[in-house]
Formats: sequence, C-alpha cells, structure tokens
Amino acid sequence: MNIPTFDDVLAAHNRITPYIHRTPLLTSNYLNQLSGAAIFFKCENLQKVGAFKARGAVNAVFNLSDAEAARGVATHSSGNHAGALSYAAMRRGIEATVVMPHNAPAAKKAAVQSYGGRIIECEPTQAAREAALAQVVAETGADAVHPYDDVRVIAGQATCALELHEDAGKLDAVVAPIGGGGLISGTCLSLSQLSPETRIYAAEPANADDAYQSFNKGEIVEKDAQQSVADGLKTNLKPRTWHFVSSYVTDILLASESEILDAMYLTWERMKIIIEPSSAVPLAVMLKNRELFRGQRVGVIITGGNVELKNCPGCKS
Amino acid sequence: MNIPTFDDVLAAHNRITPYIHRTPLLTSNYLNQLSGAAIFFKCENLQKVGAFKARGAVNAVFNLSDAEAARGVATHSSGNHAGALSYAAMRRGIEATVVMPHNAPAAKKAAVQSYGGRIIECEPTQAAREAALAQVVAETGADAVHPYDDVRVIAGQATCALELHEDAGKLDAVVAPIGGGGLISGTCLSLSQLSPETRIYAAEPANADDAYQSFNKGEIVEKDAQQSVADGLKTNLKPRTWHFVSSYVTDILLASESEILDAMYLTWERMKIIIEPSSAVPLAVMLKNRELFRGQRVGVIITGGNVELKNCPGCKS
Repeated sequence: MNIPTFDDVLAAHNRITPYIHRTPLLTSNYLNQLSGAAIFFKCENLQKVGAFKARGAVNAVFNLSDAEAARGVATHSSGNHAGALSYAAMRRGIEATVVMPHNAPAAKKAAVQSYGGRIIECEPTQAAREAALAQVVAETGADAVHPYDDVRVIAGQATCALELHEDAGKLDAVVAPIGGGGLISGTCLSLSQLSPETRIYAAEPANADDAYQSFNKGEIVEKDAQQSVADGLKTNLKPRTWHFVSSYVTDILLASESEILDAMYLTWERMKIIIEPSSAVPLAVMLKNRELFRGQRVGVIITGGNVELKNCPGCKS
Repeated sequence: MNIPTFDDVLAAHNRITPYIHRTPLLTSNYLNQLSGAAIFFKCENLQKVGAFKARGAVNAVFNLSDAEAARGVATHSSGNHAGALSYAAMRRGIEATVVMPHNAPAAKKAAVQSYGGRIIECEPTQAAREAALAQVVAETGADAVHPYDDVRVIAGQATCALELHEDAGKLDAVVAPIGGGGLISGTCLSLSQLSPETRIYAAEPANADDAYQSFNKGEIVEKDAQQSVADGLKTNLKPRTWHFVSSYVTDILLASESEILDAMYLTWERMKIIIEPSSAVPLAVMLKNRELFRGQRVGVIITGGNVELKNCPGCKS
C-alpha cells in the first residue's frame, strides 16, 4: 500500500498553488467566548469550487504526465470531489468524466457541468457506480481519481493543514470532519511532521459513526450511514486512510444532527460565512466537549460551503 | 456646517485601527464573468459588529475627551449603528444609551445588550425618538452620535474606501449603498483625494429612492420610504451628506426588491458569505447596468452581514 510522505505534500503545495486560493483564517470573539478556546477557522468554503477538495483533485490532475493527461480523468462521486475534479481538468484542459447516480441533486450535476465535466448517469447503487466507472476507464484510458483513497489526493488535502500551521502558528489541537478520511489523513501527514505535539481530533456525525466505531474497535468497520445533514461524511474509511487515523488521531468525537445544524447556523450568524453542514461538525463537537479545549489554541478546518440555500434546512420560517 | 477633511480620515484610521478589523477583499470569478467587470468586494460584513458602522462609531467615541466620555454617548437607531455605538462605548469603558422604538426587532435589542448598551424604549415615531434622545442628553450630558449626520462618523466611514483603495489599487469605479449617505460621503471624501478619476455610484432600493430623487432634482427630497428588504437604506439625506453626494457622486442607480434579493442569494451561494439585503444593492445595480462597468475594475462595499436567518427572506422551502 502506497502512503504519501511529507515531501509529497511540499511538492503538492508547489504544484497546486497557481490553481487554488490560499484561504484566510478567520476568528470570532463570540465563538471564542462560547467555546472557551481560541479558534482559528481555516476557511476552505472560500476555496475554489467551494471546498478543500480542489486541493487533492488539482494535485492528482497536475501530477499526470502529458500522455496520461491526454486520456482524461474520471471518478464516481456525487459530492464536492466531482466538481473539484472537473475544475482541475478544466484548468489543465483535459476531459473529466463523472459517474453519478441518476437521482443526484440537480445542483451537483450543474456544478460538474459548469466546469465542463461530462456526466455519466447510473443506477444509485455502489455496484452500478463502480461498474460504470470501470467501463469509462476501459473505454478511454482515463485515470481514475478516487475521492480519498489516492496518494495524490491525500497529499493535496494535506496542504490545508500545512497552510493552517504556517498562518496560525503553534496549535494545541486541530479539529476536522471525517468521512472517508482523506482530509484527516492529510492533516495527520502534515502535522506529524510540522507539529507532532498538536492533538488531532476527527469530528463525525453520530448518524454516520463508522470511523468512530473503527477507531474504538481498532479495525475498519464498514456500515451504511443513516441519513445525515452532513452528507459529505457518510463514506467509510479505506486501509490507506485508516493507516493515518489509527496512527495519529487523538480521538473521534460525535455530534447529533441538531448539534450540527445549530453549529452551522451559529457560524452563519456570527461569522457571516456560509458553511455546509459537514463543516459544522468540528464546532459542534467542540461545544459539547469544552473541557478538552479550554484555554487552548485550536485550528478548525471549515471544509466547504456548498449548500442549496433554497432547501437550506433550518431556515424555518 | 462642519465638513470633515481628508486629514480627519487619516486621523480616524489611526484612532480606530486597534478596535476594528482590516476587512479582506474577496473576488469571485463567477461574478466577474456574470457582470463583465473585475469586482473587488470590501467585506465589511466581516467587520466588528458585522457592519462598517463600527468605523464611524469607534471614531466618534474615541474622539471624545475623557471628561466628555465620562458622560457617555447616546443615539436613536434600530439598526447597525445602535450595535456599533454600544460596541465602541464598551471598548472605551463608557456608557451607551440607545433609544429604540418598543417594536424594534428582538435581535437588534439583543445586539445592543450584548455590548452592554442601555436601551430606552419609546413610541415608534420620529418625534418620540427625538424627544427621548433629547431627554437622555439633558439628563446625562451624553454626547449624541447621529448615525450619519456627524463629522466624526463620516470620517470614520471614509476609512473603508481608504483601505479599499490601498488594497485593490486603481479602480475605475466604486459602488456602495446609499441610505442617509454616511458611507457614500466618506467614500467621496477619501476617493476625491486619493483617486479623483474613480467614478462613484450610489446604489439605492427603488422602494426608498429619496436620494435618487434628490440627485435628479438637485436638492434634498425627503420622503417616507415604502417597505424595503434593505431596511438600512430607508433614511433620508441631510445637508452634510448631500454636500458630498451632490459634489462627487457620478450617478445613483436603483434596484427592485427582487433584484436585491436575487443579488443577495447569488452572493451567499457563490461567495459563501452572508450579506444583508442592503449590501446586495450594489451588485444588483451592476447586473442591470453592465455596460457601465464592462471590462473595468470596480470596488463594491459589502456593508454588513446582519440578517435574522430564521426569518431570512427567500429561504423558501
């Protein structure tokens, strides 16, 4: 199993810099008072395509040789990775093919199309998605870029914690959401090199607690998640991300659906930024585990801001 | 009539810097393509108290002598100025008294109280508000800080365009909302010194078009605004702000209620920042007057981000 190194992270950062934003750190006196910690929010909702996924996708696409690139890239995803890979391919001038279930939200399809990505629809099952992707790869020779089980993607996502560390200075802890584990793996990769004393917490919806169960059992637990507002976090770990989670993560903390939505609206209202539900899980777990972070300098990765506002849950009136 | 000078602006900037954020400029490729212009958004929604009003209020409060400050400050306002003056007073450690109609929104009262401001309720008429404020001033000797008809406030608001000019470089045009004219006056004050070629457009809701009518008639037209989602822009000009508007503004452009809300949600969705309806009027007028700005570098002042999300208009589901 190929595991990315910190040198891969540095190379990724150089490679992707022309195509991504160095996103700002924002702070909020109000949320500091509420949490008892000094929080530095790394705002990847202000990233290209509205999510940190741009980092890994751009790194994968710009890592290809010209001959490889000419055959295009492909993935199956109905989330931010689909838009990110399409964006990265557009910037390199190559084709991206995205396999999506036919019932994927129109907004997700529109995001892919806005970057010139080609969509192949399939039945909404894992088997159908994998078969459709395999067929695309067989027909075109496209490079399949997995949303997180990919060394290039993990190295790209790791650049987020690299920047956080550079801009915030020494941190006592970093809290980031966990789904398939790509972002957390990258965070572990960067911080284990740059600041091994910094504790790393993964934040997960209680409704999609496969990583939590894996962490406590000591091996990957695969399960289908229940419905969660944090729909980006329903995926399961893979051996490559489990390697980082099991080696470097301090703990995995859970939040309920209502805690996640409360933290999301609190961020909207007090920080004046739009974050998607998945991005609110770290703040949600911090507010229910205040004693872990009291008086400490804590980095929080705001992973994305892609919300369908006209369906926004909780704009209740 | 006392008119602030550019030296007052420079002094204000030094005075307020410890108490305000230097807010970021954000850009959006999508909105650039849509508008045909290169837009630099000055994000005062990320300012202290969530609005540019912090600038003028802090300047007024920290301009007082110790003897004056000891008697406190007062205003009548049910908008962002009320919170801003309370914030400024809290930072100086003095009392702020805010006269508000008893039917003012609970969130506005809560904002004042969160900064330690004292609220005096009155009947919801202009006469009652002015009488109540006069009584506060008579009883306490407090310094009355008008939301916009005040040299200190205008000089403070002018620091916003000063920073915009410093950070964006040469601009062909700047577009900012107009209500009572404090922000536009400050913008005129700074740009007439720093970049007199830059055109200044004021953006106003068609439902509250008193400044537009004033501009076209050549004298102040006072009228009661209809209902508008941009509730911060319903106030009328005063001679001091009319001086700047009539001397330096290139044109006043109007937007309908639906154009304002469309521009607001577009900004939320594409820029991932929460802006209040008043802040969306500049983008709204740019999108309906594309030919005025095509190919140009344009600064847009995002004035604030204070929205009651649970009542957010247009989160329709």
